[in-house]
Amino acid sequence: VNGGRRATVVGTGLIGGSIALALRANGWHVSGVDDDADRLTRALDLGVVDAPGPDPDSAITFVATPVGAVPAAARRALETTTGAVTDVGSVKAAVVAAVDHPRFVGGHPMAGSELEGLDGADAAMFTGAVWVLTPVPGTDDDAFSLTRSVVRDFGAEVVVIPPDRHDRLVAVVSHVPHLTAATLMGIADQRSDEHAALLRLAAGGFRDMTRIAAGHPGIWPDICAENREAIVEVLDELVERLSRTRDLVAAADRAHLLEVLTQARRARLNLPGRFSRPDELAELRVPVFDRPGEIATICTLATELGVSILDIEVAHSAEGDRGVLVLLVEKDLAERLRGGLMAGGYRPVLQALT
Amino acid sequence: VNGGRRATVVGTGLIGGSIALALRANGWHVSGVDDDADRLTRALDLGVVDAPGPDPDSAITFVATPVGAVPAAARRALETTTGAVTDVGSVKAAVVAAVDHPRFVGGHPMAGSELEGLDGADAAMFTGAVWVLTPVPGTDDDAFSLTRSVVRDFGAEVVVIPPDRHDRLVAVVSHVPHLTAATLMGIADQRSDEHAALLRLAAGGFRDMTRIAAGHPGIWPDICAENREAIVEVLDELVERLSRTRDLVAAADRAHLLEVLTQARRARLNLPGRFSRPDELAELRVPVFDRPGEIATICTLATELGVSILDIEVAHSAEGDRGVLVLLVEKDLAERLRGGLMAGGYRPVLQALT
Repeated sequence: VNGGRRATVVGTGLIGGSIALALRANGWHVSGVDDDADRLTRALDLGVVDAPGPDPDSAITFVATPVGAVPAAARRALETTTGAVTDVGSVKAAVVAAVDHPRFVGGHPMAGSELEGLDGADAAMFTGAVWVLTPVPGTDDDAFSLTRSVVRDFGAEVVVIPPDRHDRLVAVVSHVPHLTAATLMGIADQRSDEHAALLRLAAGGFRDMTRIAAGHPGIWPDICAENREAIVEVLDELVERLSRTRDLVAAADRAHLLEVLTQARRARLNLPGRFSRPDELAELRVPVFDRPGEIATICTLATELGVSILDIEVAHSAEGDRGVLVLLVEKDLAERLRGGLMAGGYRPVLQALT
Repeated sequence: VNGGRRATVVGTGLIGGSIALALRANGWHVSGVDDDADRLTRALDLGVVDAPGPDPDSAITFVATPVGAVPAAARRALETTTGAVTDVGSVKAAVVAAVDHPRFVGGHPMAGSELEGLDGADAAMFTGAVWVLTPVPGTDDDAFSLTRSVVRDFGAEVVVIPPDRHDRLVAVVSHVPHLTAATLMGIADQRSDEHAALLRLAAGGFRDMTRIAAGHPGIWPDICAENREAIVEVLDELVERLSRTRDLVAAADRAHLLEVLTQARRARLNLPGRFSRPDELAELRVPVFDRPGEIATICTLATELGVSILDIEVAHSAEGDRGVLVLLVEKDLAERLRGGLMAGGYRPVLQALT
C-alpha cells in the first residue's frame, strides 16, 4: 500500500459513482473499473473518476457491482492490490463466506436514490446514512480500520454487526418491505383494470407505501436468492400476522385491532433517527492484544447481548502488540456490554460522551 | 336555505377544522358543533369557526365526526336545516344507507396530515386532493351540485362513484395498506427487542412504507368494522399473493420474481398524478330531464363501463324540467362512455377541453 490516498471503485453505477465522488471530495485519487466500457468512459468524461483502473496502488477498493458479481470482483482486487477491499452488496453472509480473505470487509450502505446510474450519483448520498460493516474473526484490523475511517469521512454512521445477523435484519427492514410494496402495487394495478377510479384515489399514504416498488427491479432476484432463508422466514411471519389481522377484521374485534395499531404506532413514533444525540451515547475503551479477530469477537459478543455497536475505532499502542478498541454504543446499553466484556476477560473503561 | 354563505361544521378536529378554515377563506360564515366543549371553545378562540352552532340557516353542513357517529349527526343536521348535508367518513355504503335522505351526499376527501386535531388544521389541506362524492338514485341534484361546488372551491378534484364501489377501492388503496404498514412495523418492533441494531438499519424505504402506521389508531376499528367485507377480501388476496411470492423466493425463481417486480414498477411509475392535464380530459354534455336520480344513474353506468367521472356539473335549463349534466372524463375513455350513454337512451355531446 502506498501512503497516498489512492482508491479503486469497481462498478460505476449509482452507488459506485457516489462513492467515487465522495472519495474525490475527500482528496482521494480514484480509478474506475467497469465491465461496461461506455459507462466507464462516461464516468471519466463526467469527472466521477480520475482514471481507468484498477490501480494496483489502491489503499482501498470499493466493489459496487450487483451482489452476484461481488465475490469474483473482490478476489480480483485482493490479488492486484495489497490494500483493503470492501463491497456495498445488500446481502452479506454469502459474499463474506465466498471471498473469505482477511483484507475483505463486508459493507452495506443503507442509502440509495430513485434516480438510476451515474445521473443519480451524488457525493452527499451517504451523509447521515447508516453504513453497515460486517467484520468476521479473520478480518484484518488495519483493513477494517481504514474502511471504517473512509466511510465515516463520507458522513455515514457506521454500525458493526456479523454478516448473518445483517442479513436477517435487512430481510425485515428492506427485503420483505420491498416485496410487500410490489405486491400491494400489483393488487391495485390489477383492480385498476376493472375500476378506473382506483388509482386516482391513491392518496399520500399509498404513494409513500409503494414508492420503493418504483425502484429498478434488476437487483432483486439476486438479493432474494442470496438471502432466501431469512426472507422466507419473515414472509412466513408476515403472512401469519396478516391472516390474524384478517380474522380480527372479520370478527369486528375492535379492541384487538386497536391494540395492534396502537402498538405499531408507538413503534413507528419511536423509530430512531439516523444519528443518536451525543448525550445518548457512551464510549467503551477496551484494551486488547493487537491480534486478528478481536474486533469480530467483541462485535459478536455485543450482538449476543443485544447491543448495537455504532462505531469501532482501533487505537494501536505505540508499544508493540497492545491496542485499544474504542466502542461507541447507546448509553442505556453501555453497562450491559461492559458487564459482558468483563465476564469475557476484558477490562473495559466506560465513559459518557458529554 | 337562505341565500347567504352560511355553513355548519360538526366535529372540529383535523379534517373538520380544515374544512372550516377553507370555508372561511372562501367567504363563508361557519358555525361549529363539537361534543367536546373544550375543543369547540378552542376552535372559536383560534378563529377556526365564527360561532357556536348548529346554524339553522346553513346551506351546507359538513359532518366531520368519526365514521361511527356520522349517521346520527347527519340526521340531526337534516332535521335542523333545509340545506345539503355531507360527511367525510372513510367508509360510505353503510353511512349512506343509514342516513338515507335526498339532501345527504356522501363524501370522502383523500387527504390528511401527520399532525392531529386543530393544530394540523389547514385551509389548504384539500388543494389538489381527490374528494370522492357518492350520490345515489335518491340524491337531490341541488344538494349534490352545492356540495360539489363548495368542495371544488377548496381546490379539490372531485371523483364521483357509487358508495359500495368507493368502499371496495379504499380497501385497496387505503385500509389494507394501513393494516399492512402496521403489521410490518409490528414485526420490526418485536424483532428489535432481540436485535438492537434493527431499527437503525431502517432506511428511507422502510420509513416511507410505515409512515402511515404513525397515524392515530382510534379511527381504524370503526373503519375496519364498517368496511369489513371489502377489507377481508383484499387481505385474503394479499395473503395469497405474498404466499406465492414466498414460494418464488424459496425456489429462487429469479425469472418470475423479476416479472412480478417489473410489473409492480411499471404500475407504480404509471400512478396518475393528482390532476389530469386539460389536454387529457374531455367533456360530455348530456341533456337530461331535471329529475332526481339522473346523476346517480349516469354515475353507475360510467362505473360499470370502467370510466371515472372526475366531475359532474348540473346545468339547469331556464325552461322548466330539462337540464344538462356536464361530465368531465379522461379523453381516451370518453368515446366509451358516449357509446354507453347512447345505448341508454341519452344524447350526449362530446367535446375536448383544449
